Amino acid sequence: MTPGATPLVAAPGALEAVQFGPDGLVPAIVQEAGTGTVLMMAWMDADALRATLETGRATFWSRSRRARWVKGETSGDRQYVRGAYYDCDGDAVLLVVDQEGRGACHTGNRSCFYRSLVEVPNG
Amino acid sequence: MTPGATPLVAAPGALEAVQFGPDGLVPAIVQEAGTGTVLMMAWMDADALRATLETGRATFWSRSRRARWVKGETSGDRQYVRGAYYDCDGDAVLLVVDQEGRGACHTGNRSCFYRSLVEVPNG
Repeated sequence: MTPGATPLVAAPGALEAVQFGPDGLVPAIVQEAGTGTVLMMAWMDADALRATLETGRATFWSRSRRARWVKGETSGDRQYVRGAYYDCDGDAVLLVVDQEGRGACHTGNRSCFYRSLVEVPNG
Repeated sequence: MTPGATPLVAAPGALEAVQFGPDGLVPAIVQEAGTGTVLMMAWMDADALRATLETGRATFWSRSRRARWVKGETSGDRQYVRGAYYDCDGDAVLLVVDQEGRGACHTGNRSCFYRSLVEVPNG
């Protein structure tokens, strides 16, 4: 891991290919570079997506706070974007990041997906 | 990889902890077991989530067709669920699957996230 933010340049037509939902938002999946761990899912509006590329820092839209939100701005657990992808129908984004600090989750877990939906057999 | 579907039992309280949006849907990220590749993102309503666990086959809700959809039902590119997680605020689901067939994407790519949003430097 190389800490630090590097601005990214959008590929031609890529930003226009992202389909934001009726609420103006697209789900953004965040995966850790190197380990492949799925760290979190958050929402982006068009401004948050542009800011993510321009700053190289994962930037989202908080539905509850109705505000733009730069990951790690208060916690220090920043995400430096190393790759960004969009899916075949353009309605989801995947960021590949270097995760700084303890991890992605405000609970202190590295990934927000730390709870199993299913019974895990013993032994 | 061991092909074949295995029913999964929901952990106590887990299904109730998943927060579906105003449209009754939650984003579900699908990651390949073994490789860690993020294969796709699709939507689930509560019935699709229950069906996913009961059948062990990734099952979604198609927003465009307004119908339940079992992954690979027509293409044969089935997904056998080996793990399922929900995130810290319960508004996203992560499935870990064995992917059968060519891959997850109807374009023939293994992952739906096959296009870069950003310019990739040469060499």
